[in-house]
Amino acid sequence: MEYRISDKLKNLKPSAIREIFKSLTNPEIIAFAAGNPAAESFPTEYIQKKCAEILETAPITALQYGITEGYPALRTAVKARLKDAFGIGRDFDETIITSGGQQGLELTCKVMCNEGDVIISENPSFIGALNAYRSNGAKIVGVDMEDDGMNIELLEKALKENPNAKLIYTIPTFHNPMGITTSYEKRKQIYALAKKYGVLILEDNPYGELRFSGEEIPTIKSMDEDGIVCYSGSYSKVLSSGMRIGFLCAPASVMAKIVVAKQVEDVHTNNLCQMVCESFVTSDEYLPHLDKIRDLYRRKCGLMLDAMDKHFPKNVKYTRPEGGLFLWCTLPEGRDLTEFVAEALANKVAVVPGTAFNCDTLAPSNSFRLNYSTPSDEQILRGIEILGKILSK
Amino acid sequence: MEYRISDKLKNLKPSAIREIFKSLTNPEIIAFAAGNPAAESFPTEYIQKKCAEILETAPITALQYGITEGYPALRTAVKARLKDAFGIGRDFDETIITSGGQQGLELTCKVMCNEGDVIISENPSFIGALNAYRSNGAKIVGVDMEDDGMNIELLEKALKENPNAKLIYTIPTFHNPMGITTSYEKRKQIYALAKKYGVLILEDNPYGELRFSGEEIPTIKSMDEDGIVCYSGSYSKVLSSGMRIGFLCAPASVMAKIVVAKQVEDVHTNNLCQMVCESFVTSDEYLPHLDKIRDLYRRKCGLMLDAMDKHFPKNVKYTRPEGGLFLWCTLPEGRDLTEFVAEALANKVAVVPGTAFNCDTLAPSNSFRLNYSTPSDEQILRGIEILGKILSK
Repeated sequence: MEYRISDKLKNLKPSAIREIFKSLTNPEIIAFAAGNPAAESFPTEYIQKKCAEILETAPITALQYGITEGYPALRTAVKARLKDAFGIGRDFDETIITSGGQQGLELTCKVMCNEGDVIISENPSFIGALNAYRSNGAKIVGVDMEDDGMNIELLEKALKENPNAKLIYTIPTFHNPMGITTSYEKRKQIYALAKKYGVLILEDNPYGELRFSGEEIPTIKSMDEDGIVCYSGSYSKVLSSGMRIGFLCAPASVMAKIVVAKQVEDVHTNNLCQMVCESFVTSDEYLPHLDKIRDLYRRKCGLMLDAMDKHFPKNVKYTRPEGGLFLWCTLPEGRDLTEFVAEALANKVAVVPGTAFNCDTLAPSNSFRLNYSTPSDEQILRGIEILGKILSK
Repeated sequence: MEYRISDKLKNLKPSAIREIFKSLTNPEIIAFAAGNPAAESFPTEYIQKKCAEILETAPITALQYGITEGYPALRTAVKARLKDAFGIGRDFDETIITSGGQQGLELTCKVMCNEGDVIISENPSFIGALNAYRSNGAKIVGVDMEDDGMNIELLEKALKENPNAKLIYTIPTFHNPMGITTSYEKRKQIYALAKKYGVLILEDNPYGELRFSGEEIPTIKSMDEDGIVCYSGSYSKVLSSGMRIGFLCAPASVMAKIVVAKQVEDVHTNNLCQMVCESFVTSDEYLPHLDKIRDLYRRKCGLMLDAMDKHFPKNVKYTRPEGGLFLWCTLPEGRDLTEFVAEALANKVAVVPGTAFNCDTLAPSNSFRLNYSTPSDEQILRGIEILGKILSK
């Protein structure tokens, strides 16, 4: 049998990161490659207590079909937090619960893009999003990143050259993979350009609650007076990634279609975990819990940066994140990335080569991504020392 | 802002059933329109006990990211059950855990169909599947149903006329919405035609474990010597629909792409509920639990049919299911369906008009679907009596 796979999936490869994830079951490997939250960040006891309680008092709500838009009390809680913490939510906006932040990105693309339509993306960017767009037959046009966000001239050029552009995809806060934050000035410019060219912005903010230094910068969605921003968030990094709960806030006309698209993807998101999530984020424990995670990642990120300052040669450049899970290292000119990544793995340290995050899958890179949330303190110290030795050769 | 929604979503309406579902919060309405399993069919105590146990002994596995293919022990359990109960699974097959049976249907379409490609479907058919195909830009060509499954001549005609047909979609066992079962003879013919025309079969079997009378008929997938059948199943009707756990068994080359497509839709299915599911279906309680549900639905279906035999005029035809959740009533020639459905609702009985299940959304129907798993015994008796009165006018 010759399988006639669709054009959009035929050449799509599994995410390098998800594949690396499988090899991480080997405990000898130091995992700087993953994007997993720290295991100690899960409020296990709370979840256990609450599961028992929900299944005691409201088993049918938890176990029966629910509505596609999501568990109503959780939607209310999400809306309140978006308003309070991020200045998000106008009369024309609607909010839906998604099966992880990932689903919101995929649905927005499906609802907006015909095959061949363009999504303008930061380059590099989150591979899960890029592959979601590819899986819907969208074409990705990359805009190179600077230290404070997209190169705005290149963004306008891309908008001019692609009248079938439907979305500008951006992770302005604690960018994945680079760990940088787009400046307030550039956020306003991106918004203005999207408005000028009639293109929606898809603002992806899975790490927004994880700022551990510096000052808050308003979300692009908080500036959205015109109904041109879709905003995606996630509980994967602040509650549990295995629960697969995220949310999306978008103008009602777009949301109406996103609801239909979600309905036929998975009907609705797991009820029991939506209920646990609602209970947790409205409890007195949530804000202290966020502080605890921020403290944890501030410390781990600092530990990694200090070790890098000590062990990495001066010609290796890296970002200094103010939140999130990642930082981004760039090799000196002439150093081969593939060779470096292979040598690191041979020495039992896994990093993700920058090529994985390129909008153009064939483009080269001389950068790699490091994660500090998954490894233990001891692994961070040992792993960075090993990478330092390889880099110093 | 004028939103340029994708062609595939622009005209797609929410499922009439899911919309009706929202109105079912009104306890005065007798819900023959839903497809919900009976609330008493959920093994609540087991789930409660097991959630506590899992969160005690393996919290990180439950709360951290998992692999896209699914919780390994659950995949093993699914494979074993498919082999034992349905004769399914050859060396070339792979199995994945999906977020409900719905996701398996949507993913298979996405992986196989370009926009404009054709899916040949039983007509009428499950609206959730039809809308999933539409949401991917696939064109649906319907083949009319007879008492023992698709009209085989029309199926061959559709295959001949549509060289870009990628899938034949069928629910051969306890069909939704019709409640009928495709004969063994026709299953073999469908398989032979798919092979002859080089088109895959997507066999949807969410009710396969719910036979309460008659003899088992082999699944089409059990005949699959050529790697041309994708098989979708679900735990929504035998464990919990709110948990959103299903599975898909397909030839490895197709599955490789389905895994990539799922990865970018929701990364993986909720871990905690996968673990609860695995524990339940491998426990001593599972097979007796299935028997209990079968007994329940045999009784409820019998109750509804007896009441229909008593109250419905003889010129109203209906199917007599051997399993599943639904039966299908056809009005006498000349009777207006829309009027009937509206009058039923005015009398507080909700049924789904057959038009909702048509492959051609503009085609007429003089049938409607009744569900016997959701309403109470008392509601079944009262609701059928009310419908009988309206039909007798």
